[in-house]
Amino acid sequence: MAAPKDFLEFVDANADLFIQRLGEAVAIPSVSGDPSHRQDVLKMSNWLNAQLQALGVDTKQVDLGTQELEGQTLQLPPAVLGSIGKDPKKKTILIYGHFDVQPAQLSDGWDTEPFTLVVDDASGKLIGRGSTDDKGPILGWLNVLQYHHKHGKELPVNLKFCFEGMEESGSEGLDDLVIRESKPGGYFEGVDCVCISDNYWLNTRTPALTYGLRGVVYYAIHVTGPARDLHSGAFGRTVHEPMTDLIALMNKLVDGKGNILIPGVDDMVAAADAEERKLYEQLDYSIADVEEAAGGKIALSDDKVQVLMGRMRLPSLSLHGIEGAFSGVGAKTVIPSKVAGKFSIRLVPPQTPENITPLVNKYIEEEFAKLGTKSQVRIEYLHGGRPWVANVKHWNYEAAIKATEAVYKRKPDLMREGGSIPVTLTFAESLGVNVLLLPMGRGDDGAHSTNEKLDRSNFIEGTKLLGSYLYEVAALS
Amino acid sequence: MAAPKDFLEFVDANADLFIQRLGEAVAIPSVSGDPSHRQDVLKMSNWLNAQLQALGVDTKQVDLGTQELEGQTLQLPPAVLGSIGKDPKKKTILIYGHFDVQPAQLSDGWDTEPFTLVVDDASGKLIGRGSTDDKGPILGWLNVLQYHHKHGKELPVNLKFCFEGMEESGSEGLDDLVIRESKPGGYFEGVDCVCISDNYWLNTRTPALTYGLRGVVYYAIHVTGPARDLHSGAFGRTVHEPMTDLIALMNKLVDGKGNILIPGVDDMVAAADAEERKLYEQLDYSIADVEEAAGGKIALSDDKVQVLMGRMRLPSLSLHGIEGAFSGVGAKTVIPSKVAGKFSIRLVPPQTPENITPLVNKYIEEEFAKLGTKSQVRIEYLHGGRPWVANVKHWNYEAAIKATEAVYKRKPDLMREGGSIPVTLTFAESLGVNVLLLPMGRGDDGAHSTNEKLDRSNFIEGTKLLGSYLYEVAALS
Repeated sequence: MAAPKDFLEFVDANADLFIQRLGEAVAIPSVSGDPSHRQDVLKMSNWLNAQLQALGVDTKQVDLGTQELEGQTLQLPPAVLGSIGKDPKKKTILIYGHFDVQPAQLSDGWDTEPFTLVVDDASGKLIGRGSTDDKGPILGWLNVLQYHHKHGKELPVNLKFCFEGMEESGSEGLDDLVIRESKPGGYFEGVDCVCISDNYWLNTRTPALTYGLRGVVYYAIHVTGPARDLHSGAFGRTVHEPMTDLIALMNKLVDGKGNILIPGVDDMVAAADAEERKLYEQLDYSIADVEEAAGGKIALSDDKVQVLMGRMRLPSLSLHGIEGAFSGVGAKTVIPSKVAGKFSIRLVPPQTPENITPLVNKYIEEEFAKLGTKSQVRIEYLHGGRPWVANVKHWNYEAAIKATEAVYKRKPDLMREGGSIPVTLTFAESLGVNVLLLPMGRGDDGAHSTNEKLDRSNFIEGTKLLGSYLYEVAALS
Repeated sequence: MAAPKDFLEFVDANADLFIQRLGEAVAIPSVSGDPSHRQDVLKMSNWLNAQLQALGVDTKQVDLGTQELEGQTLQLPPAVLGSIGKDPKKKTILIYGHFDVQPAQLSDGWDTEPFTLVVDDASGKLIGRGSTDDKGPILGWLNVLQYHHKHGKELPVNLKFCFEGMEESGSEGLDDLVIRESKPGGYFEGVDCVCISDNYWLNTRTPALTYGLRGVVYYAIHVTGPARDLHSGAFGRTVHEPMTDLIALMNKLVDGKGNILIPGVDDMVAAADAEERKLYEQLDYSIADVEEAAGGKIALSDDKVQVLMGRMRLPSLSLHGIEGAFSGVGAKTVIPSKVAGKFSIRLVPPQTPENITPLVNKYIEEEFAKLGTKSQVRIEYLHGGRPWVANVKHWNYEAAIKATEAVYKRKPDLMREGGSIPVTLTFAESLGVNVLLLPMGRGDDGAHSTNEKLDRSNFIEGTKLLGSYLYEVAALS
């Protein structure tokens, strides 16, 4: 069931008003990572709460307690929960978004004031901090609500909302809230699926749905030797040097082709069959796109499928750096006494921090023993998170695919992301329902960069997409 | 010919006065590396010039021009040249020392005011910045001059002095001066040998002579890939990572036993024969001494000779660190776009920067080609200096050995240093004469550290040693 024709017309007719409202939201500098802007995040919570109420949504602002930041005790911005529709015959969809933003200053290199939405008619860009991450998508939902509210129309599904103001600062307080409200009797009881619009198309051309995210484990290999830093003139070739041992260990983790050398890690992931390879072949993304994004002709392979699978469905190991060694400019003749090599592994199912860490520890300890050094080694697990993959045959995805085809007249790219969006896993695990990532913006929006933008067409067609998705869910029920 | 008995008695009788004069010198905070102390270095030059003149030395202060430091144009402290005695039948010895010091502040962890000489009668230590490096040795020469001046006695040799005030800051301006004055008609014309007292015994027990220093070459291996730092989630296993390639290269430079893996480098140095090994066996220095100095049981071998040769007569390669990679605390998921691995090689004869650098470049380029990466590599030569080894059969060394036996009643350790004292090479090459390093202080003096000290007995017996050395030179002529 496609969205009503007059909904689509309403969106086009009200585009300027929608953009004006996005300007109001962008003008509130709700930077969650900067204590001096904490009041603005609270203000943004209040603004959003009032908008939802005006559009007929039952809401509540939930106190998430306090946090310690830079020596201050700060009130966390309240999350905004909302509910509209209670028809037991309809599906209930939980919508997530965040109303806080990354820091931004003109002096960072912005061409325009970051907290003033600039509508550039020539390029069709709506430029401002939060335009695409994540105020645009949240306002897309407000736009959908407005149509139904104004015309006294019931939504085709029941909606619950969960909007937070700490996403750019580790979603502090959110996990507890989601876990609590997902229990029987909780606010999220009866939710049938989740829809999150907080990521981006693969490129600038093709709408996309995201059904997988990699997890991560992050480690430090600590190698210690002498009690203090030594002069390389006085001690070179007299003592075991921790740097020599650490470099040898780091060299055993990954090869130049990206293969992970820790036994059992790559093997844990089944090879893609012909059908799965086809998924990657179909994606509107080329080696040139990868290399343009990276800024160099450095793709690991000339085979597009291989490169995309390397990003989306294979684990990866990156060496990030060394703590404790000389890292400045110039030439310092030091033998560092203790060094820590940092590396992380991006995980895909069935890998988890719990099944990968023992393999890492065992291998590094065995390889260290082979070095025959008198240095000491210790492996530190710094943090980790599980990967996530959703079932794309679920009606939640089918609805999103149909809605995309209706609005954009083409099939969406069905993709997995190489990085992590931790809240996705929290919803999937707490609620046990299908989670859909339905991006509104394009791959070049520059979410955390200067001159963040959302294309006008993505905001307007994206609003149509969100509304259409609700109607397609209802049709598939 | 031993020094006159009344010289030795004079030194003992005037010990307190000598220490008082050392206190005067230490009280001038002649820190060459700190522009705010530049006037104190000038003051120290004047003080020393006046002391020498009062003891009958013809002197001149030589303007060395200016330097740019921290955005300021600073006058370099004038070097002090001196001359006493012109008897063509006597040997002429050139004495070098430096009157500038390392920075020091109580807040660095000193137990006492660094620029107030503290005479600790219980431990026998003279504590203060510059006490051992290098004001104590310079004042040892003043003490020797004072005996001869007071008693109207001619020195047994002719002396030239070259004292500088920029040693702790790269001896700026000195090389030009030495090269110029070493030419025919220059101030140093007719010099038969050089004596430098600016290093330390191997331990706290046994006097030493130093006849060799290692040279050094310092390189950075630059590996570049993407145009900007990348997120390891989005790009892990899609692109060649410069860190992976750099770690692979750094791992090919040296093994865990200290062997240099660059073909031709270790091979360039002839193995020690039985006679040379005996020199190392005789040194009063144990594995325990090495490990105490390093603060850990981490010697590369249990064979004392092997460990001492590793420090003194073999090249060494140390990996110092990586510029451009993540080096902070915590966990940053970055793929650095360009990294520079820093390493240096300590050189021994016949190795030179000129014959080592082509081997380094060729090897790294070959190994990089084997990696099959799309990253780029560039090898940067940062700085270098040649090694130096003196002939210990020369009368200059024979005199120093006899003087040591006379004053300390034991044979000195004949040793080579693992580090570099660049001015040594400048004198050796400019003058073409034998250079002797005749240390006054002990291995635990802490020359560049907090609580720098010179033992009272090293100052007083050291003064006797310097005087006796002059008489032994005269006797051997």
